[in-house]
Amino acid sequence: MLITLSVDLGLRSYPILIGSGLLSQAMVLEPYLKHRDVLVVTNDTVGPIYGRPLRGLLGGCRVNTISLPDGERHKTMATVNAVLDALVEGRYGRDAVVVALGGGVVGDIAGFAAAIYQRGVDFLQVPTTLLAQVDSAVGGKTGVNHAGGKNLIGAFHQPLCVLADTDTLQTLPDRELSAGLAEVVKYGLIADAAFLDWIEAHTQSLLQRDPASLRHVIRRSCELKAEIVAQDEREHGRRALLNLGHTFGHAIELHAGYGEWLHGEAVAAGTCMAAAFSQRLGAIDSAAVERIRRLFGRLKLPVDPPPVDPGKFLAAMGMDKKVVAGQIRLVLLDRIGTARISADYAPHDLADFLREQFVR
Amino acid sequence: MLITLSVDLGLRSYPILIGSGLLSQAMVLEPYLKHRDVLVVTNDTVGPIYGRPLRGLLGGCRVNTISLPDGERHKTMATVNAVLDALVEGRYGRDAVVVALGGGVVGDIAGFAAAIYQRGVDFLQVPTTLLAQVDSAVGGKTGVNHAGGKNLIGAFHQPLCVLADTDTLQTLPDRELSAGLAEVVKYGLIADAAFLDWIEAHTQSLLQRDPASLRHVIRRSCELKAEIVAQDEREHGRRALLNLGHTFGHAIELHAGYGEWLHGEAVAAGTCMAAAFSQRLGAIDSAAVERIRRLFGRLKLPVDPPPVDPGKFLAAMGMDKKVVAGQIRLVLLDRIGTARISADYAPHDLADFLREQFVR
Repeated sequence: MLITLSVDLGLRSYPILIGSGLLSQAMVLEPYLKHRDVLVVTNDTVGPIYGRPLRGLLGGCRVNTISLPDGERHKTMATVNAVLDALVEGRYGRDAVVVALGGGVVGDIAGFAAAIYQRGVDFLQVPTTLLAQVDSAVGGKTGVNHAGGKNLIGAFHQPLCVLADTDTLQTLPDRELSAGLAEVVKYGLIADAAFLDWIEAHTQSLLQRDPASLRHVIRRSCELKAEIVAQDEREHGRRALLNLGHTFGHAIELHAGYGEWLHGEAVAAGTCMAAAFSQRLGAIDSAAVERIRRLFGRLKLPVDPPPVDPGKFLAAMGMDKKVVAGQIRLVLLDRIGTARISADYAPHDLADFLREQFVR
Repeated sequence: MLITLSVDLGLRSYPILIGSGLLSQAMVLEPYLKHRDVLVVTNDTVGPIYGRPLRGLLGGCRVNTISLPDGERHKTMATVNAVLDALVEGRYGRDAVVVALGGGVVGDIAGFAAAIYQRGVDFLQVPTTLLAQVDSAVGGKTGVNHAGGKNLIGAFHQPLCVLADTDTLQTLPDRELSAGLAEVVKYGLIADAAFLDWIEAHTQSLLQRDPASLRHVIRRSCELKAEIVAQDEREHGRRALLNLGHTFGHAIELHAGYGEWLHGEAVAAGTCMAAAFSQRLGAIDSAAVERIRRLFGRLKLPVDPPPVDPGKFLAAMGMDKKVVAGQIRLVLLDRIGTARISADYAPHDLADFLREQFVR
């Protein structure tokens, strides 16, 4: 069963193809790639498993492959430079297509390299993790980390197409499956309370990788993301809601060391912090906070941050991209299914909150 | 006298301000900068002269400055990383403004850093060389060189404003003045035969830095560039005409070593090569070629390339961004004032031509 969604961005609109066995359908990428020069960017974990099936989809193209070391700690300018070197050495022209085969890290690096090679060449996302299929492969955010903060260097660069073969999730480590589910929960919390109910009722079938359940959450997540991105591609407004838990989460990732915590794990604990801070400001009640913590717990995700000095944690939050005029804007929950961006709190509220969080 | 031109790009439209003494007009940047956080990017040659006057225009802003080593050989990702580090260390937010104070190299680096910091922050061009005032500061092309080719890494990122104080040209070395005039001649050749006549009649006053003559060529060059960029921002068509002589020129720069030849010098010799190749294909006559060589000579610019192995020269041309499907598209002259993009020649024509050029 092939599900096709569309991200509506005028001339830069593109399809998201979701289905089982897509990597065995020889013609599925034909409309995007015919006879073009392709550089496949993958990593040392995914490449050996899915590199060969992918090549079966690239008939008629000149294809080179670069394999990156796996892991968030390699999401750096140095790795982007390695991809750029491969493009130059392969003498790729402006008509090249970069294909990202892997999870969020591979997609972010490959997409950013495509964005800046010759001032922009086409790229295509073939996400193989749940997190990438429900979130990072869609919407055109690309980039890398800086020692001073997460995703500080990057570009908006939309893909030609996103191809999500749900069969790839059967080889995903349990931890990465759970990490992807953290972003799925996020969509329910910010935009669709009924979807959150559905997730709560299906935690076991999701963790057991029931194909129909996974297909449902991928589809619904991509629908919600596509709608939000189409409204606000460059995050001047509503798109920032997709960062629920991410300002707290980025500070966790920075202080735990990239790669110690998976991004989705940091988002889960960060979302619990955002929920607790929302409660402190009187936006949601303690029952909602408990409900969120319970759900993440059942999905085998952390609900508390690692021990960090509260002052350092606050400083790390201050390097988040949502800071404007020195004020940290946070995504807060008004109720399950409804969120807003707010800088409408006293600075000492956040400082006090962090001190309390980290004395546990 | 203040001349204001406009680059019409819808929401991204911006003014070009041209005039004498603009760096002493305290309020001139006020509309773009009020109370924002500014990072000034300059170099070790220009900063000591114009850094202080510029700061007089930035009242009410938090201002840090980073000074880069001068010269094309520093137009690399490593230098961009130094600017990004300064932005992170200075804790600049998404509302930052990067101000480029200097020539084309500073503008290309600062603009590219602004394009990729936090997926894009504002920037402003304060060009202090003739080449930057007539060409590189206008139009939003930013980027750096790669060991494999010129400007291979970059982004389109339009400035908020271009401020060209013509007084800065009085401190410019003679060689750089001539280099800027190479790009001025280019506009006449591709788009305005009467302008070329005017330049020929005013070579002496231009070389003597007569303010009125310089103002005229800056204005006319910016008018022509603004018109072409407004029609074709991302260079899908006509904008490529602005690269007359540049595919040959980039190969010269690569093989002479960045910085041995100034960009404008390489463009002058490259344009003579493009003219000679146009003649070979029957597009223009030998009188036109001679006229072009004579004009560049009078402007103290080189008209022949340095000695390079023809095969290596051809390979370097093949890394130019105008290569599509393996074919090198060249800007050719049909007559003085009219150019076109063409890949309509036999590959051996170009190879034979290069062999003849380099046996002289």
